[in-house]
Amino acid sequence: MVDYVIYGRGSFNQLDEILAPQRKDEAPIIFLVDHFFEGKTLPERIPLRGKDKIIFADVTHEPKTTNVDKIAGELKDEFGTVSGIIGIGGGSAMDLAKAVSLMMTNSGSAADYQGWDLVKLPGVYKAGIPTLSGTGAEVSRTTVLTGPTRKLGMNSDFTPFNQIVLDPELIADVPVNQRFYTGMDCYIHCIESLQGTYLNEFSKSYGEKALELCQEIFLKKDLWDHESDDKLMMASYAGGMSIAYSQVGVTHAVSYGLSFLLGTKHGIGNCIVMNHLEDYYPQGTVEFKQMVQKNGVEIPTGICKGLTDDQFDKMIDVSLGMKPLWENALGQDWEKIMTREKLRDLYEKL
Amino acid sequence: MVDYVIYGRGSFNQLDEILAPQRKDEAPIIFLVDHFFEGKTLPERIPLRGKDKIIFADVTHEPKTTNVDKIAGELKDEFGTVSGIIGIGGGSAMDLAKAVSLMMTNSGSAADYQGWDLVKLPGVYKAGIPTLSGTGAEVSRTTVLTGPTRKLGMNSDFTPFNQIVLDPELIADVPVNQRFYTGMDCYIHCIESLQGTYLNEFSKSYGEKALELCQEIFLKKDLWDHESDDKLMMASYAGGMSIAYSQVGVTHAVSYGLSFLLGTKHGIGNCIVMNHLEDYYPQGTVEFKQMVQKNGVEIPTGICKGLTDDQFDKMIDVSLGMKPLWENALGQDWEKIMTREKLRDLYEKL
Repeated sequence: MVDYVIYGRGSFNQLDEILAPQRKDEAPIIFLVDHFFEGKTLPERIPLRGKDKIIFADVTHEPKTTNVDKIAGELKDEFGTVSGIIGIGGGSAMDLAKAVSLMMTNSGSAADYQGWDLVKLPGVYKAGIPTLSGTGAEVSRTTVLTGPTRKLGMNSDFTPFNQIVLDPELIADVPVNQRFYTGMDCYIHCIESLQGTYLNEFSKSYGEKALELCQEIFLKKDLWDHESDDKLMMASYAGGMSIAYSQVGVTHAVSYGLSFLLGTKHGIGNCIVMNHLEDYYPQGTVEFKQMVQKNGVEIPTGICKGLTDDQFDKMIDVSLGMKPLWENALGQDWEKIMTREKLRDLYEKL
Repeated sequence: MVDYVIYGRGSFNQLDEILAPQRKDEAPIIFLVDHFFEGKTLPERIPLRGKDKIIFADVTHEPKTTNVDKIAGELKDEFGTVSGIIGIGGGSAMDLAKAVSLMMTNSGSAADYQGWDLVKLPGVYKAGIPTLSGTGAEVSRTTVLTGPTRKLGMNSDFTPFNQIVLDPELIADVPVNQRFYTGMDCYIHCIESLQGTYLNEFSKSYGEKALELCQEIFLKKDLWDHESDDKLMMASYAGGMSIAYSQVGVTHAVSYGLSFLLGTKHGIGNCIVMNHLEDYYPQGTVEFKQMVQKNGVEIPTGICKGLTDDQFDKMIDVSLGMKPLWENALGQDWEKIMTREKLRDLYEKL
């Protein structure tokens, strides 16, 4: 679990106070900030002290193990050690911060730790501050990274943040499309968790609450206001908790293939897939399409057009490699249900 | 936040494995178990190793600072230090375990730390295993104790458990009345949090989910089954999270007075008060009475009969001392609303 959770409008203003007890001698605090904020006002509000540094992270593409190694290596060269790594941004910036924190203390490459419980040492202090809500990266026990051979997280007890600051004011200016794609990541977490075979009352309670919040803001309300931001931020948290205690499913497994081969970003990739999952999540797919329509968003189509057999095979390999996701979605006999042929058909529709 | 949360039927069977990494050399793990289980089968399932010890805690009365000091003192005399304190039982047993853990490292008496953020050092490793659900003690940042001059918790960042094990199998055999009184503690947490002035979307989401679960099991379902236990255990957790991010209200403030003077236990005390709160929680009080009726439970009345003026004054002092509770319930001008006279009238009705 995340050790400390602050939720509240304006709580970002408490950051200096929150970080003060974490400062160790001269070791600086490093703020990894989504490059979207370069030249905007948010960075001016970051409470820099001593050798503290803001690094703008280019998250045009989702984080790679090579990015992580590079940033951690440079920080070690420049400072020896740091007091903490603070991720400010969406899922990519937060996951990058978690991974860099871990690689400040664990040797080798981040790629060595892609998998479950491979991380050996706690990282340096790390905090997450979402400026985009839906991924659940703020509470997850993983940090999704594209490595040389796979897209897989550093999933461990040492991965969750020590602190998160949930300030709904920070998500007020997200462009409508981006907000929708990322918000749908949360909606899809709920559908996948609630219809999964791994479900228990703990993840069900979180999933139902997150689902209800998503339905309220993306379907029932006609106007997006402060309350919508409050609810979306809470939905992301609850949706993240739900999958932390169950697992995601078909959408994520298929979208990981897209992301590995085509670099499709997670939020929009999930939307592209969810648009065609009537066979697996009938009710969820219908409701998803209602949300798309109500929010006036375009979901890209035809993105697999013209791919070669080898490319389809690569996506299918990556996707079928996500065994726990398939098992959660389709049960223990999932391999009989989701054959390579069926998955190829699905990819061709996208 | 609690560092590690396990939820699942049968998860108690993993206890040996969960505790293994916490064992330090010869230092034993101490299990503080509700005396209700003395001679029953649960203690036989506790994975004792080396010098580990079960202490049955008499929770006929809620824990006192003197109990805490005595147990911590005896453990220090016998073992020097211990690897961990595991509380197994209801709110009293769990709060006792949290307090003893803190007093293994902090000097002086537990009474010195009654208040907010007075605890100076982390305690020894502590885990909570509820066998009774509703209090939310499993997730709270306090440990309610009756001291020489007040009933008040050791409320601090060091107070939450390191680990909780939520196994709904453990609450299956709770007597109906006890289950109801303790379950209503959770229901009342929801009402007080949701109608309080401290509410935000975070505590609201938890409060609404816990309320919905309580309504389902205490009002809608006709039979109590495994699923009811699953839901009650989750409701207790979510209700506890809701008040951790807001505050309780009138019921708790009034019932603390009863408890201080008459030793009335927390669950039943809250029920006695909630039975007469139409003026403050109109809808909640009506629904509470429906639950009482549906579950065929008796709520005691006339418990303040024959008390002296001095005794009433003492209860009123204790109750009005809970300023944050009143402020949450009635707003900043609460002192104008809840006068001593009005509170005296309320106590006389109970």
